[in-house]
Amino acid sequence: MPGPQAPLVLTLGDPEGIGPEIALKAWAALKPDGPVFAVTGGLDILSRTARLLKLAPPAAIAACADAHHAFAASLPVLPDRPGSPALASIEDAVSRIRAGDAAGLVTNPVSKAALYAEGFAFPGHTEFLAHLTHDMALAGERGPVMMLAAPQLKTVLVTIHQALRDAIASLTPEKIVHTARVTHQALRRDFAIASPRLALAGLNPHAGEGGSMGCEEIDVLAPALAQLRSEGIDISGPLPPDTMFHAEARERYDAAVCLYHDQGLIPVKTLDFHGGVNVTLGLPIVRTSPDHGTAKDIAGRGIARPDSLIAAIRLADTIAANRRGVRA
Amino acid sequence: MPGPQAPLVLTLGDPEGIGPEIALKAWAALKPDGPVFAVTGGLDILSRTARLLKLAPPAAIAACADAHHAFAASLPVLPDRPGSPALASIEDAVSRIRAGDAAGLVTNPVSKAALYAEGFAFPGHTEFLAHLTHDMALAGERGPVMMLAAPQLKTVLVTIHQALRDAIASLTPEKIVHTARVTHQALRRDFAIASPRLALAGLNPHAGEGGSMGCEEIDVLAPALAQLRSEGIDISGPLPPDTMFHAEARERYDAAVCLYHDQGLIPVKTLDFHGGVNVTLGLPIVRTSPDHGTAKDIAGRGIARPDSLIAAIRLADTIAANRRGVRA
Repeated sequence: MPGPQAPLVLTLGDPEGIGPEIALKAWAALKPDGPVFAVTGGLDILSRTARLLKLAPPAAIAACADAHHAFAASLPVLPDRPGSPALASIEDAVSRIRAGDAAGLVTNPVSKAALYAEGFAFPGHTEFLAHLTHDMALAGERGPVMMLAAPQLKTVLVTIHQALRDAIASLTPEKIVHTARVTHQALRRDFAIASPRLALAGLNPHAGEGGSMGCEEIDVLAPALAQLRSEGIDISGPLPPDTMFHAEARERYDAAVCLYHDQGLIPVKTLDFHGGVNVTLGLPIVRTSPDHGTAKDIAGRGIARPDSLIAAIRLADTIAANRRGVRA
Repeated sequence: MPGPQAPLVLTLGDPEGIGPEIALKAWAALKPDGPVFAVTGGLDILSRTARLLKLAPPAAIAACADAHHAFAASLPVLPDRPGSPALASIEDAVSRIRAGDAAGLVTNPVSKAALYAEGFAFPGHTEFLAHLTHDMALAGERGPVMMLAAPQLKTVLVTIHQALRDAIASLTPEKIVHTARVTHQALRRDFAIASPRLALAGLNPHAGEGGSMGCEEIDVLAPALAQLRSEGIDISGPLPPDTMFHAEARERYDAAVCLYHDQGLIPVKTLDFHGGVNVTLGLPIVRTSPDHGTAKDIAGRGIARPDSLIAAIRLADTIAANRRGVRA
């Protein structure tokens, strides 16, 4: 029998955003039953924010293992690391996971402009995490692949932050195959779905209607589907995008493979704006994050909703347990 | 005081599809309280379908006015017109509306392949209706513009049945301005919204994020918004497409102007797959239709759902009443 699961680590995110506030609110919601987590640094700002919110002051801890004891009374906060705050807290979190002291990582939103000003050389969080973990073992296909997960619907993206016309032009059978393979393996390993069912969205209206409204379904999607099916992956499609996300249609698959940002994000955020979780599939470490930004416009006012962060913490805990073979 | 409203006319749609079945089911649902409607032809197939569904046989009527009396006991059916069935029934319906005998038109889905085989020279129903009514008076900007309307959300489309890459390439400020103008006027005339609020969706992820992910928001959407605002039309945007369709966001506008088919149809059909209604804005006549196809695969089995058709009949009745200045 494996022992109890290690705590999760949570980064503070942009100190001028809502990260500190929702970290405290998430702790207040989760302290009775967990999952237990610790924040990597930021004791000063967390203490100030706790006063604003009229919550118990956070508690400095020396190591992740101390979080179990502290959590019922206070939000546990690990020591600040030297270096640029946002980067150092991510590096600290990863090194604790590598050491086996933490079970997984939840990241609060960062401001990319602020990271770039610190000399950050990656497009975002996700690519930096792939870099920090590139030498760690992972069975199967390596990501990163972005999943947006809500209780009603999981979608993954073949292309993400590209202009729509560039996203279309960049689609290849290889990218679709890669995304679907990583997703198939992650549904088994991280979501404990023994026989995952995927659904591939079409690109064009009515999935092209036999080539009369666009040829990508024939030229790009069909070869990808043939390859995936030859590998034994259960994937339907290409499906007409407008009729694949309602309740009855969603029962036919475990995750939808979407070709561009808004195709995957519109249905999840329309169904569940506050509870969606961003999950990075195909990393050697467990990593989730809330699906909103830094929200600096409402920071410091006490009105930020912690729903997505709470869902991200719970999901990271579940994924970590599934990876260990223990249901959370 | 205007007199009571004339009945609506409903076309049979593809006789091999679910049109006859849902026409009868809609009548069964609406016979206690209306709105009253009559089908333009198809007595034979409607009689056979009524036996299958164990519903009262439909009643032949000579003129629309007879529908009021017949409706409580039987589905009223107007005489077949000579000529090709699908086209003749649409032409018949329009001529009855022009004569003032019918208040508006609800069209059941047709098979475009069957229409083309009959020598039909229009891309679809909607263009044919625009042709049949081009000489009728209409105050303001003329459509047609396609709206998908559900109780939770109304969207209109700037481009419709085009490959996504062609839809992007075909976007112009003029098309967006035209679509928004027609929608603004239709919300006032047809939906009795005195001061309509529109929202324009962006094209790219995060609405382009200031040009870092696509330039259409700057080059195409911004000039359209400036023009519309100079005309006094209340339109927000461009909004990030993934965060504009959840419940709180929807409270800020009456209709969303969407740039491509799936951007407008994914959110409506995800929220309300069975109750969405297709409304043609900017026509001199009132016209709605269910938002599904002919569904030949399930025709004749008695399992087709009439929800969308019922919603289409109710909405046509409301629009007709609004155009007369009488709330239904």
